Amino acid sequence: MDQRQTAIVDNPDPSQSLGQISHLALDIGGSLIKVVYFSRNRDSSVDHKGESSSNDNPGVFNGNRKHTVLKGKLHFAKFETSKINDCLEFISSKKHHLGGFQHHENPAKDKKFIKATGGGAYKFAELFKEKLGIGLDKEDEMDCLVAGANFLLKAVPREVYTYVDGHKEFLQIDHNDLYPYLLVNIGSGVSMIKVDGDGKFERVSGTNVGGGTFWGLGRLLTRCKSFDELLELSHRGNNRVIDMLVGDIYGGTDYSKIGLSSTTIASSFGKAISDNKEIDDYKPEDVARSLLRMISNNIGQISYLNALRFGLKRIFFGGFFIQGHPYTMDTISVAVHFWSKGEAKAMFLRHEGFLGVLGAFMSYAKHSLDDSVVNQSMQSLVNGSYASDTNYNPQNGDWSDNESIPCSLYTA
Amino acid sequence: MDQRQTAIVDNPDPSQSLGQISHLALDIGGSLIKVVYFSRNRDSSVDHKGESSSNDNPGVFNGNRKHTVLKGKLHFAKFETSKINDCLEFISSKKHHLGGFQHHENPAKDKKFIKATGGGAYKFAELFKEKLGIGLDKEDEMDCLVAGANFLLKAVPREVYTYVDGHKEFLQIDHNDLYPYLLVNIGSGVSMIKVDGDGKFERVSGTNVGGGTFWGLGRLLTRCKSFDELLELSHRGNNRVIDMLVGDIYGGTDYSKIGLSSTTIASSFGKAISDNKEIDDYKPEDVARSLLRMISNNIGQISYLNALRFGLKRIFFGGFFIQGHPYTMDTISVAVHFWSKGEAKAMFLRHEGFLGVLGAFMSYAKHSLDDSVVNQSMQSLVNGSYASDTNYNPQNGDWSDNESIPCSLYTA
Repeated sequence: MDQRQTAIVDNPDPSQSLGQISHLALDIGGSLIKVVYFSRNRDSSVDHKGESSSNDNPGVFNGNRKHTVLKGKLHFAKFETSKINDCLEFISSKKHHLGGFQHHENPAKDKKFIKATGGGAYKFAELFKEKLGIGLDKEDEMDCLVAGANFLLKAVPREVYTYVDGHKEFLQIDHNDLYPYLLVNIGSGVSMIKVDGDGKFERVSGTNVGGGTFWGLGRLLTRCKSFDELLELSHRGNNRVIDMLVGDIYGGTDYSKIGLSSTTIASSFGKAISDNKEIDDYKPEDVARSLLRMISNNIGQISYLNALRFGLKRIFFGGFFIQGHPYTMDTISVAVHFWSKGEAKAMFLRHEGFLGVLGAFMSYAKHSLDDSVVNQSMQSLVNGSYASDTNYNPQNGDWSDNESIPCSLYTA
Repeated sequence: MDQRQTAIVDNPDPSQSLGQISHLALDIGGSLIKVVYFSRNRDSSVDHKGESSSNDNPGVFNGNRKHTVLKGKLHFAKFETSKINDCLEFISSKKHHLGGFQHHENPAKDKKFIKATGGGAYKFAELFKEKLGIGLDKEDEMDCLVAGANFLLKAVPREVYTYVDGHKEFLQIDHNDLYPYLLVNIGSGVSMIKVDGDGKFERVSGTNVGGGTFWGLGRLLTRCKSFDELLELSHRGNNRVIDMLVGDIYGGTDYSKIGLSSTTIASSFGKAISDNKEIDDYKPEDVARSLLRMISNNIGQISYLNALRFGLKRIFFGGFFIQGHPYTMDTISVAVHFWSKGEAKAMFLRHEGFLGVLGAFMSYAKHSLDDSVVNQSMQSLVNGSYASDTNYNPQNGDWSDNESIPCSLYTA
């Protein structure tokens, strides 16, 4: 039997310690490893609910079936891919709690699997087996991105926001008016996916100028040691020091005939041609700023052009690159607004960096339960549990990406 | 009276020295100044041809009118904008030959004008007046690019070629099937113009990641001193050293489900994230190569997306960036082919860097003669004179950009 269908916690032993961790999933990208795992609330009781079968899937649900409801939270973590040992240690420390990963059909085999997506699920499969004795159950990267995005868009309130003139505005997406949309996931590289429904999508474009370019080039140019440091640098910088503006070419005036103001960037890094300076003569923060603007603007433009191809008005941006960074979001928003003449809108997701790994996480359920039931149950329960979540303040809305999502799992 | 209408050589004095230089025009961009000037052949006779008027323009041509035919050559030169003094000296050395620049209506005023386009025509207008006593007669940059491109496409044989698998293939463009096309001019920045006819066009897009970015970033990263040196470096480099490939993420395998082979670049400069190297630990040639590929590919992609918007099958690339560099052309061609699935074609122009300045040059005629007559006469004469040009070898076809174009001017 396909092991995929058995990765769900099945009637967990109530004697297990509270706060138990289960259902860990991974998204191993070129730069970052994203982790999602579920922990039961320490005070949560285990409910057993009967649920009628769906006649659409008689092979799966023939007769009444009991679902176990686990209340708890989804937690998020990330590691640099180059420091994968940190991630292995982290998983190892949780491992003996991972009751949910045992092979359902034959627990005696003691063979554990975790859902994993991203290229690293292939690249590091052997390493996980060797070091942890855990198999990686590979899920397709695009499938996972779309599943994760749809989950967030449909199930998590105040997930989506626009960023205009320095202000976040949270939006409630009408579930009946969600599709089609363009999903732009900015990881090391960028994928652009036209999404038409649950599991209905096409990767229509992408670009190799993404988060990895920002981080990699930025590191070479500024010598800074981390992505966060680079973002922080860019926050303080001034791109006009190195970028060649329209005004620099036109002697301070606009080129108004074609709608280019004097402050429009004509050529990123163009001033470095004639400045007669070496890299160390520039402030790292100015270099970081120019780089961030170049890449954000470029992604915004290519995204818009792809949205235009298919008449998509909404573009959702995800991936670790954005990090809720004001300047990044502003540049992307302005680019989409500028190129679309206000027709298309850039939207951001609070859990932007975790789309893929959420999709991988959801695939635990996908393979053992009917899809519609999974989605319905995860949504309604995630929705339902928000009301009682004391950590979450909808008025503030500025919930950090790594913060947990209160959630309940239906397990069969 | 508008000075623009008087910049044409009018009945030049036959006693003037042969080899006379006249009709110099400038395109002063953010990085480079491009110069075109006309020199009469030393052995050329001056013909006076009668031509019937066009009844369509009775206001311009009422009755027979004499045109003076000057046989000679168009010459090309370029200077770095940051070294504008070299350009001023160059013009100064030609200045007393520039009979054509005197004010027609009132030569006694001894006020000279030269046609100029690009932002520098505004920025440096005062400098030209001060240092040379020459006024810059400003022509719109986009008008000039389109006029120059149309001239080359219609009047100069073997101007257009494709670059496939390392081979140039010259194309004869059918004049009746030229429009519409996308013109992509890669200077410091990039302009993308949909051209529908003579003087009929719209700048539909552009990008700030262009030649100035390649040169500016390249200079910071490699410390090389010139654009040509940077191109030469890139020729010897290997982008796989620094770029993160699909295979690097997937452990050597493809991501074939979405058509990405293991050698596709997932993230330009992405390997620099985890290599733990500083910029000096990489070979400059590898860095230059990655940069060239990143920018060429990006321009190819955005160009294609814009061609797609308007259903344009032909994209002509101009601007100083390309320089007939095989790797640049190959990357752009492959990008257009890849993204359009073979539907659209990248084409290159031998005089790529001089579109704008050729347009400015042609505007000497535009403002004193009826457009259709100017175009017709320039075309036919340029065409006609090729046959007898001993310097040009159509079999070879590898004519350097700076080489002169044999040409005759009709002047009224």
